Amino acid sequence: MSSSVQTAEFDVIVIGGGPAGENAAAYAIAGSKRTAAIVERELVGGECSYWACMPSKALLRPGHLLSAARNMPGISADGLDVDAVLRRRDAFVHNHDDSSQVAWARDSRIEVIRGAGRLAGERLVEVNGRTLRARHAVVLATGTHANIPDTPGLREALPWTSRDATNLHEVPDRVVVVGGGVVACEAATWLATLGARVTVLVRGQALLGNAEPFARERVTAGLTAAGVRILFGTEPVRVERPAAKDTGEGRIHGGPVTIEVRGGPEDSVLEADEIVVAAGRRPATADLGLGEVGLPDGYVEVDDSLTARGVDGDWLYAVGDVNHRVALTHMGKYQARVCGDVIAARAEGRPLTDLRFAATADHEQVPQVVFTSPEVAAVGLTEAAARRAGYSVDTVELDIAVAGSSLARDDYAGRAKVVIDTDTDTLLGATFVGPEVGDQLHAATIAVVGKIPLATLWHAVPAYPTISEFWLRLLEARRA
Amino acid sequence: MSSSVQTAEFDVIVIGGGPAGENAAAYAIAGSKRTAAIVERELVGGECSYWACMPSKALLRPGHLLSAARNMPGISADGLDVDAVLRRRDAFVHNHDDSSQVAWARDSRIEVIRGAGRLAGERLVEVNGRTLRARHAVVLATGTHANIPDTPGLREALPWTSRDATNLHEVPDRVVVVGGGVVACEAATWLATLGARVTVLVRGQALLGNAEPFARERVTAGLTAAGVRILFGTEPVRVERPAAKDTGEGRIHGGPVTIEVRGGPEDSVLEADEIVVAAGRRPATADLGLGEVGLPDGYVEVDDSLTARGVDGDWLYAVGDVNHRVALTHMGKYQARVCGDVIAARAEGRPLTDLRFAATADHEQVPQVVFTSPEVAAVGLTEAAARRAGYSVDTVELDIAVAGSSLARDDYAGRAKVVIDTDTDTLLGATFVGPEVGDQLHAATIAVVGKIPLATLWHAVPAYPTISEFWLRLLEARRA
Repeated sequence: MSSSVQTAEFDVIVIGGGPAGENAAAYAIAGSKRTAAIVERELVGGECSYWACMPSKALLRPGHLLSAARNMPGISADGLDVDAVLRRRDAFVHNHDDSSQVAWARDSRIEVIRGAGRLAGERLVEVNGRTLRARHAVVLATGTHANIPDTPGLREALPWTSRDATNLHEVPDRVVVVGGGVVACEAATWLATLGARVTVLVRGQALLGNAEPFARERVTAGLTAAGVRILFGTEPVRVERPAAKDTGEGRIHGGPVTIEVRGGPEDSVLEADEIVVAAGRRPATADLGLGEVGLPDGYVEVDDSLTARGVDGDWLYAVGDVNHRVALTHMGKYQARVCGDVIAARAEGRPLTDLRFAATADHEQVPQVVFTSPEVAAVGLTEAAARRAGYSVDTVELDIAVAGSSLARDDYAGRAKVVIDTDTDTLLGATFVGPEVGDQLHAATIAVVGKIPLATLWHAVPAYPTISEFWLRLLEARRA
Repeated sequence: MSSSVQTAEFDVIVIGGGPAGENAAAYAIAGSKRTAAIVERELVGGECSYWACMPSKALLRPGHLLSAARNMPGISADGLDVDAVLRRRDAFVHNHDDSSQVAWARDSRIEVIRGAGRLAGERLVEVNGRTLRARHAVVLATGTHANIPDTPGLREALPWTSRDATNLHEVPDRVVVVGGGVVACEAATWLATLGARVTVLVRGQALLGNAEPFARERVTAGLTAAGVRILFGTEPVRVERPAAKDTGEGRIHGGPVTIEVRGGPEDSVLEADEIVVAAGRRPATADLGLGEVGLPDGYVEVDDSLTARGVDGDWLYAVGDVNHRVALTHMGKYQARVCGDVIAARAEGRPLTDLRFAATADHEQVPQVVFTSPEVAAVGLTEAAARRAGYSVDTVELDIAVAGSSLARDDYAGRAKVVIDTDTDTLLGATFVGPEVGDQLHAATIAVVGKIPLATLWHAVPAYPTISEFWLRLLEARRA
């Protein structure tokens, strides 16, 4: 392949080889002779592939399926065999071997450079003491790290972050999860499914604070039914695990951890075998050299073309979690597709006049699935967000109780809500809660993004007897 | 309630109380003081509820779920317990007791009249020797019957129709299914799943003749893998079961049936314990009095407002299978909603100017799910149908192989095809094949009915990692 002299210059250099970085590189050079490099300090494939989406969903799916099978007359189902589930998880994270991703990069004519990339000036990236020059673009795609709060003793106790929780090798007996967001709810779900006794410490008064109220309530009820103890209005104020030690070569576990808790129904001291911190994220930009190009520390602000604000010359981009638009893999990849197309157009002197040169769906049309039990699938604006944004809003909310849902499982319990812009008679958002509603979501996403009037949706007939027939009930309820 | 003198006249009289008839009656009187009657000779709820969709899906769902559970490491699943599956099926058909449907009718202010309804002139319906008068509308919703071909000995052998196959109480050891359409494929699937040795006699060279070729092939492969023997290019030419007898009070089974088969790889004589005829349908109009209003025998032709053609005065309507537009429950209900709205508008002297007064989706935007293993979910036009209709067509076809599908089950195998109108850059149709793709379909239905340009669909981001990410692959493939 290329020698080091040839590779000192690339058309496009991407720092961070997660899904967003990979897509930005691939789209920026697709169908051209442009060259690209991805600089990656860990594994090509990124957080999502090894430490987030993939392992968490691999841990969650067997529990969901077992629950469905157990509730179906005629099937006798047992489980979970924890070792089998963990082995399947290991297969999904390729045992932390990124060679298939590296092969993908090679096949896509993208050079992979191992090391921590750092901006060294305009269009310059430093890695392993070597300076690379980008002819057209540098894309920042370094993502985020788990945030560990400054609670006394917490860092020293070597708490689990989401990375440890997704990559667990043994299921701790007693686990305390700190946080009430998506990561906390999903981790509590799989830990409980795999046999742990889980307590969740939530600072606020609800899980999934940005979700529709009924979604928060149902996830809370689902976790509680799974044996998870949720303590609202609480936070750890002191953590102790005296023997824990990070030797640099490995972490000494240190045995049970003691957590002093403030607030909530019980001001008390909890003892657990593991503590999982899911208390937000911080940008992975500390050593990225943002100052070298005149940018402040922290997240990298971009416009809808994913071009960094405050940098001259349209050469610096940021995609994925690091730009703080939407911290979701699929939206990072979406931004990356737009970003790659923008880079390609600018490199070829084409104007940015097409729909595809702006990440318009990032603002009010974002889909997300929370793989709890029940699942929460939502797209666009919640009622509260729509009202805050000044829309003229109507809503319909009802149970998902149609022939298809009853057929799917005897204990099916689901609920759906749509948020309607009464000025245009279109959907601003939708939230579905229930078993496997994640795959019901794309219909709503298409309706929201396509801004299809309800009068037209009336003619989009759900096939009988599928679960999607609840769409008919929603439209009928709106008419009535 | 009303006395017989009062009930001799209704605003709306519906003959046939299946899902289409029920919806037509309900929509025609909704929000008004109008009166309605449903005349039903069997069970209110109709074919779908007791003898078709509901029992067939109740028989199919456990097999699909067992297959998913068996292929998930960490779960140990056994089954099927045939008695448990049949009992669940019985629950879904309410043990052929229609009291819940009758209660629904009462709550909806619809009078149920038991008996065979028959047209007796303009706006007149005769039932049980009594004549009812409709002030505004008569709606025909009598559906269809299974067609039994004139094969020598076949009728005398008392073959099973779809009704018997969905309501089986014991699983026959050896079954011959005659037909290659949806009913034949689904019946072969559940019979094989429940333990029968099944042979399917298909006159043509493919199952599901109107489906995309890859869908036909995959259903054929799925049935074959389930142990079903499919003999293409064959048909029964003589059937014998000497002891079979319909006494009027019950059917004497008559033991094994001998079927002489012509064509295919083996011209031979098959012996089976049961023969299932799934060889099309014929309209249930023989005793409907169509001649009294000047209509020919057979299906009742209607326009998009569901008004019968060839009858003066806009008072006669037909919805559901009997109008021969689309023989699917959900489309019959859709027609019924349109029909009910049209009746209401005409009764109130309002013009039919709204989108909702025409069953526009009946022609080229019909969704359908075939609950075989794999499932087939399709909406709109196939490539062949689109070309026949003169559209300027492009297609994308690819395997459904995304993170979400791998997570769903290790053995996930699916395929998707979209048919694109290159003049408008919109979808004309889509076909998905794979486990549980039925609930992927509504996204396509909305895209097809909403005529959303692909450039806009690009911004409808599938949530990661759901199966719906194959939408991204389809759009990427189209771009490439």
